[in-house]
This record gives sequence, structure tokens and C-alpha cells, in this order.
Amino acid sequence: MALRDTGLLGVWLNGARGSVATTVVTGAAAVEAGLAPSSGCVTELAGMDAAGLVPIRDLVFGGWDVVTTPLRKRAEQLAVGGVVPAHLVGSVTEQLDCADREIVLTEAGDPQAPQAEQAEAMIAALLRFAQRTGVARTVVINIASTEAHPAHDEAYTRLDLLEAAMAERPGVLPPSALSAYAAFKAGCAFVDFTPSLGVRVPALDELARREGLPYAGSDGKTGETLAKTALAPMFAHRGLRVRSWYGANILGGGDGATLADSDACTSKIVSKQRGLSRLLGYDPEGTVHIDNVAEMGDWKTAWNHISFEGFLGVQMKMQFTWQGCDSALAAPLILDLARLMGRALESGASGPQSELAFFFKDPIGDSDPRLVVQYEQLLAWANALEATS
Amino acid sequence: MALRDTGLLGVWLNGARGSVATTVVTGAAAVEAGLAPSSGCVTELAGMDAAGLVPIRDLVFGGWDVVTTPLRKRAEQLAVGGVVPAHLVGSVTEQLDCADREIVLTEAGDPQAPQAEQAEAMIAALLRFAQRTGVARTVVINIASTEAHPAHDEAYTRLDLLEAAMAERPGVLPPSALSAYAAFKAGCAFVDFTPSLGVRVPALDELARREGLPYAGSDGKTGETLAKTALAPMFAHRGLRVRSWYGANILGGGDGATLADSDACTSKIVSKQRGLSRLLGYDPEGTVHIDNVAEMGDWKTAWNHISFEGFLGVQMKMQFTWQGCDSALAAPLILDLARLMGRALESGASGPQSELAFFFKDPIGDSDPRLVVQYEQLLAWANALEATS
Amino acid sequence: MALRDTGLLGVWLNGARGSVATTVVTGAAAVEAGLAPSSGCVTELAGMDAAGLVPIRDLVFGGWDVVTTPLRKRAEQLAVGGVVPAHLVGSVTEQLDCADREIVLTEAGDPQAPQAEQAEAMIAALLRFAQRTGVARTVVINIASTEAHPAHDEAYTRLDLLEAAMAERPGVLPPSALSAYAAFKAGCAFVDFTPSLGVRVPALDELARREGLPYAGSDGKTGETLAKTALAPMFAHRGLRVRSWYGANILGGGDGATLADSDACTSKIVSKQRGLSRLLGYDPEGTVHIDNVAEMGDWKTAWNHISFEGFLGVQMKMQFTWQGCDSALAAPLILDLARLMGRALESGASGPQSELAFFFKDPIGDSDPRLVVQYEQLLAWANALEATS
Amino acid sequence: MALRDTGLLGVWLNGARGSVATTVVTGAAAVEAGLAPSSGCVTELAGMDAAGLVPIRDLVFGGWDVVTTPLRKRAEQLAVGGVVPAHLVGSVTEQLDCADREIVLTEAGDPQAPQAEQAEAMIAALLRFAQRTGVARTVVINIASTEAHPAHDEAYTRLDLLEAAMAERPGVLPPSALSAYAAFKAGCAFVDFTPSLGVRVPALDELARREGLPYAGSDGKTGETLAKTALAPMFAHRGLRVRSWYGANILGGGDGATLADSDACTSKIVSKQRGLSRLLGYDPEGTVHIDNVAEMGDWKTAWNHISFEGFLGVQMKMQFTWQGCDSALAAPLILDLARLMGRALESGASGPQSELAFFFKDPIGDSDPRLVVQYEQLLAWANALEATS
Repeated sequence: MALRDTGLLGVWLNGARGSVATTVVTGAAAVEAGLAPSSGCVTELAGMDAAGLVPIRDLVFGGWDVVTTPLRKRAEQLAVGGVVPAHLVGSVTEQLDCADREIVLTEAGDPQAPQAEQAEAMIAALLRFAQRTGVARTVVINIASTEAHPAHDEAYTRLDLLEAAMAERPGVLPPSALSAYAAFKAGCAFVDFTPSLGVRVPALDELARREGLPYAGSDGKTGETLAKTALAPMFAHRGLRVRSWYGANILGGGDGATLADSDACTSKIVSKQRGLSRLLGYDPEGTVHIDNVAEMGDWKTAWNHISFEGFLGVQMKMQFTWQGCDSALAAPLILDLARLMGRALESGASGPQSELAFFFKDPIGDSDPRLVVQYEQLLAWANALEATS
Repeated sequence: MALRDTGLLGVWLNGARGSVATTVVTGAAAVEAGLAPSSGCVTELAGMDAAGLVPIRDLVFGGWDVVTTPLRKRAEQLAVGGVVPAHLVGSVTEQLDCADREIVLTEAGDPQAPQAEQAEAMIAALLRFAQRTGVARTVVINIASTEAHPAHDEAYTRLDLLEAAMAERPGVLPPSALSAYAAFKAGCAFVDFTPSLGVRVPALDELARREGLPYAGSDGKTGETLAKTALAPMFAHRGLRVRSWYGANILGGGDGATLADSDACTSKIVSKQRGLSRLLGYDPEGTVHIDNVAEMGDWKTAWNHISFEGFLGVQMKMQFTWQGCDSALAAPLILDLARLMGRALESGASGPQSELAFFFKDPIGDSDPRLVVQYEQLLAWANALEATS
Repeated sequence: MALRDTGLLGVWLNGARGSVATTVVTGAAAVEAGLAPSSGCVTELAGMDAAGLVPIRDLVFGGWDVVTTPLRKRAEQLAVGGVVPAHLVGSVTEQLDCADREIVLTEAGDPQAPQAEQAEAMIAALLRFAQRTGVARTVVINIASTEAHPAHDEAYTRLDLLEAAMAERPGVLPPSALSAYAAFKAGCAFVDFTPSLGVRVPALDELARREGLPYAGSDGKTGETLAKTALAPMFAHRGLRVRSWYGANILGGGDGATLADSDACTSKIVSKQRGLSRLLGYDPEGTVHIDNVAEMGDWKTAWNHISFEGFLGVQMKMQFTWQGCDSALAAPLILDLARLMGRALESGASGPQSELAFFFKDPIGDSDPRLVVQYEQLLAWANALEATS
Repeated sequence: MALRDTGLLGVWLNGARGSVATTVVTGAAAVEAGLAPSSGCVTELAGMDAAGLVPIRDLVFGGWDVVTTPLRKRAEQLAVGGVVPAHLVGSVTEQLDCADREIVLTEAGDPQAPQAEQAEAMIAALLRFAQRTGVARTVVINIASTEAHPAHDEAYTRLDLLEAAMAERPGVLPPSALSAYAAFKAGCAFVDFTPSLGVRVPALDELARREGLPYAGSDGKTGETLAKTALAPMFAHRGLRVRSWYGANILGGGDGATLADSDACTSKIVSKQRGLSRLLGYDPEGTVHIDNVAEMGDWKTAWNHISFEGFLGVQMKMQFTWQGCDSALAAPLILDLARLMGRALESGASGPQSELAFFFKDPIGDSDPRLVVQYEQLLAWANALEATS
């Protein structure tokens, strides 16, 4: 860590020119300037003020991306799509440009070269970012497109095997996991906001614990699944047996296109359904569809149909539709996770932070799946951080 | 307490020939005979088995009503409306007839006579019921039609003033409150499952505490409001500001007709909205309509439209529709409340049991409005009963 | 009429600074400039091109209003509310200012003065507009706030009685009807797009026929009712008996506030329900609510719940929700009505044009209530105009 | 034709023990006995009485099926699922047994034998049915499970090639088409109520015309698609461009299980989407899902999400949910088609009856796709039948 603690917190986004990242940077600047409400930021709620979090104005953004469209341009595109208010973009162009300068192009590199080379470049980028900006610590957050899960690889099971494999061959880890590896090697915390493999690799857990670094994930709980974790306990606690729970999701944007690819979609759907079974204590019938409807842009509509059984087997129904903007729902959570994990890093927390289950569809570790309980756990965890620092 | 504890629990229903009561008696018999699942009974869930509750087969039903249609006939009517499965009714006619014989016609009496006379008759009915059936204790539950709230009466403020007024004039207490008075005078527990005045009278609280008797209420949380208390914490905990929450309810049956009367409807709507403000911490815009659509029979459909604000003020929407049968949702909760309050009575609990907020739209006492928290409180309360007995 | 036919058509809006009017003027300019699609304009569809309508670029706008906020300012407000795209407003300010200069403040005048004086001023305004702009003919369209219906007045039954009353006393006609009177006296066509009294006065019909002028109305069919007239024939033609049809509408904006006033709301609801009974051949149960939810702005959400009976009495349900922007739905229809009535005026059509039922919730005259049939009638009428000119 | 016209009409159902068939027979008996309303029967509406249709009491049922469960048993099962009212079944057991005796088991036969043998047996069954029951004429209606479409076969192109192939090899025609072949060879009319191949084979059209026999199809329009054909013209006629139209259908029962098979489902979905493109004049984005949710039984819920564009490109939404019972929706249409095609047969109509498009998702022949227009065409066709006979 830096000799002198500037108090600045680095937020390094894997996928730094995507819709979520652009909304994060635009929003942080707008909230800081008092131009927009911080709605959707959990860390701005009453009860969180004691946690000693870095203020939004002290966040410094950077990251990796495979595209070069400047953030300013991306923000204008999002304004047209109604993701961020049009009048804000013009007021924060300076901050967008500033963050844009800290974005490093993800280099494909020599496809035959051992992956260790690529990892070294990524670690170096993180270190240079810290040096250049003076941040005291950095949280790396994966918000890149959802990947298909790779086949099991023996190298994943132990850190020494992993590093040996990376020294020898290319493509050992998928990008999400590689970003976690680089994060830990550079002394950063790591968060996976996607259902990709990310940090769910025993060798990476070993690395995080060895380095005494915290991580959290995975798959941000922003919309349909959020509503499910709020609603399902109602059926469970009232003894109303859910006969079937069916969901249809339509969305456009980059996310819609990615998820139309069946493998990535499978990762996502598995993640969406996992919670339901735990919330109810059994698996109801039903499936979840995710369909790309390009004209919806960054907006998603989900319809859920729940058929349940009351007293004497009488059948009843509940349906809901959710019309949300995923980027606008995810962005404040990214700010929350950065600030909370920054504090965890400062406090010396190490390994998986399962108390952050509130934020995730498929939380790492064993946690209560009920949203309200997760919220209480989050509050308790944040307060405990305070106590220990 | 009775000298000899038969273990039988009396369940005395005010409104004993209504749809809910008929479903309660039909259902208890069907569940006991293994003909139907106990879905919707909270006291049958895992975690409740340690509470030492009276088994369903040891419940003995009776009550007051203003109509004389036999329960058997009422059950057949409900079967046509899909409230109870048609094939069950024929199998439990004996139990229906048995309960029917314990129903006492609510007597209007001499409209000029002091209310104390009417109260005496009601107390006597409760005592005769206990003697005749051998129940060890009795829980009186109000499930009669919702009343308009009466004007404030000075006599409500103290028990001595109340009894003095009742000794002098008719109509001091509305029927719901009178049934609570009679319950306490006869050594019974009392539950108000309606939004009527019921036990919400300081003088009645004084009486309950003096007699060492427990009570609970009010207004059973069966459908739309249940869903609200499950969903609203999601918005609150995520910092998603609710701009408006609007509800439209259509239902037929006796309940639909009663609530079409504007005064009773006002009682109900006030009760429905009270929780929302506490759950969110502010009052969003919006109203709730309850409309009588006779052809819906005992089924209710509620539509809720929630407009909320995410990051940077971006507006999103959630809508839900709930298609439920109120009697089938309420009936198992009546069994739950009878069993839980029977146990409270046995354990010597006195005064308002605010830990039962889980069951009510407008719980007496100061309790957390979140459904999941209410459930945990209920579990803790039930286990504590066990410990103390 | 003008000696030289400039081909220009005057569109004189009663309520010229309201949301609908502002959208009309903004939109006409944007469409003319090729900046936006003419979606929602029926007169731009295939099949209409033979009707010889005045092109949108030859429409000249003016009108009355009680407020003075300039159109340019109103357009900016609508852009914030998402009624018109923000980027368009800046491109059409000149046209907005131009129309704004033709708006005449509705003068309250001397409240004791006979209404004839007020009428004269209005007629003079229409004539001055024609002279100043050179329009060959003018269509007056009422899009002012919905009024409560006045009590019956004997003066409404005959033109001579009406004019005698107007010569004597103030307030004979409500504003909507007064604007129709002025229109006919100035040789203009008249359209009532609201459920107000408007031209539904025998004395005004007499005037229109005497002057050989066409009129149409009333109450633009833009959203929920539009969907009803599309859907109801499905139930009727399939013999599926509608047991109940229930609607809940929430909206903000000026319209929301006006309709929250119960009298105006009654006018609206009567108008909304009238069609259903004619479409089905009987009156199903159910009601319609219109509620003001200010935060919804110019957007309206309607929920409809339809309970219907299939073979052997089996009960089924259909629900729909409509999320529309009334001003954006109404504005292109105003352009349509102006162009079509301009053509009717040119062709010498006189009296009520019942073939325009397609546009109205509560069409004047006896017409088929089915939307598809109304469309075919409209096409036939437009083609017949062509033939006769 | 029969020498003596008994006036009786044979209704021969391919799939005679399925849910639809059972509902048809139960319902016809119940309506005839005055025990249930004929809701959902188009031929019972005003305007149809002049068409000279055979009364319901003169319909005689028979058919093929691969299962042996008696109709009486099937009706009891449907009563449990809420498809037919439970109290009716007991009153019509005689009629169910009577129809059951006329059901012929579809014989697999020798799998190596030429298909002509199987066809002969089927033709013979039809002739025996006519002889035994004395029906004057018979309409064969395919309501068997949806098949996957076969690959193109040169034999389908001409009747001589088809009969040559059938004389030589097995499996030339799939069951739906084979039933059409047998129908025409036995002098019957044919209706395909499914999306299977059925009569959509040039060689079968040739046969029907040669024999002077009428046919109609295909794929009964009972629910979601029915609503689409009612709603889509609203968007088209108002110039409201549909950006996307997405549908999700969940259903159980035999139909749910069949359609979960992807090939059959493809037949169905193609059929569902075909109409939309014709109704709008273009192909909006979006897809349709059909999912088997076994617990839904014979009930189907469809959610449709329609995103459309109004004036100046402003985006609006309409959603609907349809909760219907397919068998109860289909059954009265089967009675309608039997009676109408019986009359067509009597009148000497030959070849495809495209005026029956009102009943079908994917009507044979070139017809207006709008429901209201289809209804008017049906009325005109029925009246013309009258005139010619």
C-alpha cells in the first residue's frame, strides 16, 4: 500500500466502455456535482453512514475494454436510449474524458504466447494506474460481457498448477478469471458482477487468501431476480406451495445480443434459477427465457407467472412485469460495491465476502437467500468493518 | 384454567356462517381426514413443530352469526364458486353439521335495552359452549363483515366508564368490539381478523390486561397487502424511490358488496395504505380502489402499478396482478391464529401480542412492517411460548 | 371564401398552448422538415393518397388559449416529459414562435355582458386570422380541458332561441360550444376532440346545416377506448359472453388534474363506456376509474380486466395494460382531422360527418362501433370526397 | 348422398378421445339438454339463423383415436381440471357412451404394408359409420396432436402419383393427411383444426375437387392468435408502427407435452406468426415461445408484449395476458365447423372454403387477415349457402 494514504479509491472496471461502466462514470460525476439524485445507491441510505466509506468524489475510474469508442460518445448514445438523462451528459464531459484516459485497451497479444505474459501486462497496468492517480487502493470489478463457462481444467484446482500452466500455454483462464488473477497479483480487491467464471476457481481463492485480499460475486441482482428474492419468501413463509414459476425476459443492447448466444444464456439462466430453489425449499416447474429484442435497447421487460396452491389445493396466480433499465440498476450497485470493498480492503478482510450476498444473484458462499435478511447482514457487516478499523 | 385440561381448543367465530368460517370448518375436517393438503397453514411449516400447538383435530368450532343458512349448504355454495373443492364437501358433512349446531344466532335483542344485557347473553353463550364441548380454553375470532368505524366515545377510554355506559344505554360498542368484550369477560383470547374497531379500544385493552388474556389483530393480511409487504422492502433497501403506488381491486361475494359501501371501504383502504408508508419511510403518490364486481364471486383480482426512480432519476415500472381467493387465503390463517393464541392463552400471555404482526395488515403495537422480519419474530415468539410453558 | 385559393389550410385550436396543441405544432414542423416519422398519422397511410388532402406543410396554426406560456417553452417542458424527442425542439423553434403569434388569449370579458359580445370577438379573431395568413379555409378544433356538462337549456333547442339568449345574457353556452358557434359563424368547419358539450346542441347543428358547414366529434379515441373497440368485437363475434369489463386509468399532466374533478370525469367515463355496450350488444358489469397521479406526467397507464364466459359457462380472463402518451397519440389525429375536414369543407360537405367515427370515442351520428369497419368507412368517405370535388 | 335425407349430420373426429373431442361431445349433449349455455358457438349468434344449419341435436359423433380410455372417463378427468363443469358430466353419460361406441381405434397395422391398405380400412370405417347411424352426410375434422411437417415428397404433387406411392409403400402421408384422403374417398367434407400437414397437399386438393367436396383449415384460432388478429389492425390502421411483438405461452395437458417437442412446436409457431406479418404489412421483431408447464393442465396463459411507435417516434407499450382453456375455446368452434361444412357439403360446395378464415390461424387460400372482416365474410358465405340450396 501507499506510504501516504490519499484516501482515494481506484475503481478499475473490466468492460470500462460498456453501458454499465459509462453509466457509473457519468452518474458518479453527476451525483458529486449535485446534478442528480443518488437513487439506487445502497451506500447512501440511512444506516450506512457509520461504515466509513470513501465518498463518491474520491473514486478514481479506470479499466480495460476491447473497444475504443470514447466514454463521452458512449454517454451520448445512452442518453438517446433514455439510460441517462440527456441534459446531464453535457455537464460531465470533463470527468468522462478523464476516466477515458485511464482506460487500457485489452490486448489480444500473441495468441501462441503463454498466458503469463498477458497477465504481467495486466498487472503492470493496474500498478501504473495506482502510481499515476495516487489512489491508495483499487477495486477491480468485472462488468464485461457474460462468457460461456469453460470446461474444467485441472490447473484450476491449485495455485501452483495454475501458474505453471499459465507459464506454459495460452488461454488457461477465460478473461473474467484472468482479471481476477491480475487484481490479486496487484494487491487489489475483486468483484464479479457477471455470471462468468470470474473468481470461482479454487486456485484464485488460494491466491486471494494468501495475499490477504477480499473478493465478492457473482452476477449482479438487478431486476427480475431481485424481485424474485423479495417475493419468494412470501410464498414460503405462508405455506403457499408454488406449482410453477415461469419467466420471460426481453432486452436489447449488448446484453441482449450476448445472451442470445445460447452458452452465455445458459450461464445466466442457471444463475437466475439457483436462488428460487433455495428460497422455496423445492424446485417448482417452469423455466426462464431470455430473448434479444434489439429495439428494446438497454431496457428490459420481464414477465413472471407464478401459479401457487392455497388451502385445500385451491389454485391461485400472481403475475408481475418489470420494466427496468439494467445499466441504471447496475451502476449504483457498482459504486456501492467499490466503496464497500474498498473499505474491506482497508480493513484487511480476506477471501470471499459472503455478507455481500444482497448484491448478487448467485452469491459466493453460503448465505440466506432472502433479500431482507441479506440487507440486514450487509448492514451488520458494514458496521463491523467500522469497528475493526 | 379448567380443572381437567382436555387439551381441546374452542374456536369461536364471530361470523360463523360466512365464507371464511365455512372454509375454516370444511378445511379443518378435510385436512384432519387426510383428504386435502394443509397448504397455507403457517403452523404446519417446519420450525413450528416445537411450539406445542393443539393439533387441528382437537379444535372445536362454534360461533355467532346473523344468518341461519346451515354450514353444509354454505359449503356447497362455496364449492360451486371454486373456493373449496367440490368433492370434499360430501366427505365432511358430519363435521359441518356438528359445528353448525354450536352456532348461536346473534340476537338483535331489545334495541332500547342497555348493551350490558346483550353482553351478558354473549358471555353466557361462550361459557355454555365451553361446558358443553369440554374445551379447555377458547379463542374468539372476529371474521364478520367490516364495519364503519364509530365516532369517538369517551366511554372507550376507561373500563369503568365503558361498563357504566353499557349498563345505561344500547349501542355503546359496535359488534366487533362487543365480541371482544364478551370474549375477555368469558376468559377467552380474542383476535380481530377485520379492520373493524374490534379490540382497539383502551377500555378493552385494560380489561384484557386485568384478566391476563391475550389478544391480536387487526385485519388479516391475505392478498394484495401481503404482496406489498413482501415487495416494498426491495425498493426501500435498494434506494429505489417509489414515485407512485396505485392499486385497483375487484371482487364479488359478500366482501365485495360490503366494501362497496364507502364507509367500510374507507376503513379497509386506510388499513391497506398504512403499511406502505412505514415500509418505505415516506408516502408515495397513489390510491387504492376496491370495487364490487359481483360476478367475480369469492375471487379477487388486484392490479398494482408501481412507478419508481432509479439512478439519476431514471423512471422504471413494476406491475403485478394477484388472482386469489380471499376465503381460501384467510381460512388457514384462522386455524393458525386459533392454535397460536390458544397456546398463548395456555402460557399466560396477556395483552396485545404484537409478535403476530405477520398475519395482519394493520398490526396492533409497534412492529417491523417487513414480512420476512415478521416471520422470524413469529418463529421466535412461538418458540418462546414453548420455553415458558 | 377567398377569391384566390392559396391552398393553405388554417388549423385553429381551442386550447392552443396545451400539450396536444404543442405536440401538433412541433410535430407538423418536424415531419415537414423530415426530422421525424409521421407515425400515428392516418392520413399518411397507403389508401389515403387519393383523397387530395392539403399537405402538412400547407397547414397554418393558430388558436385560443387562456394561458400565455409561449409554445417554445411548452415544447421544452414536453421534451423533459418524453412527449416529444428533446433534439427536435431546438430545430423547430421558428415554427413554434410563428404559431405562437397567431394565438389569441381567450378573454373572460365582462362577466355580466351578453354572450353575443364574446362570440363577436371570437368570430372576428377567426376572420382576422384568415386575412392575415391567407388561408383558404379553416378548421376549428376543440382540444381544451374537458368541461362538466351544463344543465339542459331551452335555448339549445333552436338557433333563434339560442341567439336570442346570447343577445341577452352571459354564459349561455359553455366554452366548447361557444367555439363551435364562432367557427360556424366564421365559415369554418368544427371538430370536437373532447367529451365536452361542443357541437352537440341542436341549435348549433341547425347553424352548421344552414351555413353548409361540416362538423365532427366527439372525444378523441386515443388509448384505452381505442383498444376496447379493437378487442370487443372479438368477444362478440365469437359468442364469448363478457361477464365484466373493468378499467383503471392513471395519468398526470393537465388532463389528470382536470379529470380528477368528478364532473368532468363523469363526462369522460360515460363517453368511454358508451361504446362497450354497443360493441357487445349488452352491458357487462364493471366500471372505469380515472385517477390523477401527478408524477406520471403526460403518460397514461390503463389496466383492463375482462372476465368472459366460454363454452358451457367456463370462465376465462383477459387483461391488458396500455402505456401510452396521450398527447403523442392525439396530435397526429388532430393533423388527420384538420386535413380531412379541410377537404370536406372544400367539397361542400355539410352537417355531422359520421363517417369519421374512427377517430372518436363517442361519435356523433349512428355508426358501426367496430374499429376495422370504421376504418373502411373512413377510406370510402375520403375517396368519395375525391370523386365529388 | 343418401337416398333418404335423414337430416342427421355425422361429425367424425380424428382424435376422438382427446380433450377437445370430449368437450365437444359433452357440450353438445349439455347444450341440447338445456343444461348449459352455447357460449362460444358462432353458429348460435344472431345473423346465423338464416343459414339453414343442422341443429345441434342432429349431430352424430364418431371418430378415430389411438387410445381406449372411454369418453365418460375422459369427461370426468376434464371436470377435475375445470374444463367442463363437474355437475354436467353425470347428466350426459349416456350420450358420451353412445359416441364412445362409434370410436374406431386407429390401427397401426402392418408397418411394412403399403399405405393403401390402411386407407381402405379408414374409408370403410367412415362408410360403416354412415350406414349404422343413418347420417345423411359426414364432416371429418382433424383434432389429433400436432405433427411435425414431413419432408417434401414428389408424390404429394399429383393424385395419380400419390395413389401410386400409397399402393407401393407405407408412410407416404402423415396421419393428418391420410385422414383427409380417407374423408374425400368416402364422400365426406374435411376440416383441419391443427397446424399439421392435413389437406395442404396438391394431390388432396385435386381429389377434393374431383369429388366435388369442400374442405377448410387450418389450425384453429382459439386464443393468443385470436387476440392478435383483433388487435393488430388497430396498430395498422392508426399508423402506429409495431417495433416488436413478443409472446410467451405456457400450457400443460396433452397439447403442452406435444408442443414441447420442438418440431411440432415449430409448425405451431410458424402458423402463429404468419398472420402478424400480413396484418401489419411488415415483420416486427420478436418471437413466440410455447412451453409445457404440466401443472397448468388444459389451461393456457399467454403474455404478449407489444412495443410500438407513435408520433415523432415516441415509444409506447401494450401488454396483454390471456388465461383461457383451449379445449373450451375449441369445442364450440368444432360444432360450428361441423354445421357449416355440413351445409356446404349439402350445397355442393367444392374445394377450399377460404371464407371460413375466421376460424383459423393459418387459413387456406387468400383472405383478409382481420378478424372483423373475416366475420363479415363468414356471415355472407353462410347466407349465400342458404340462397343456393
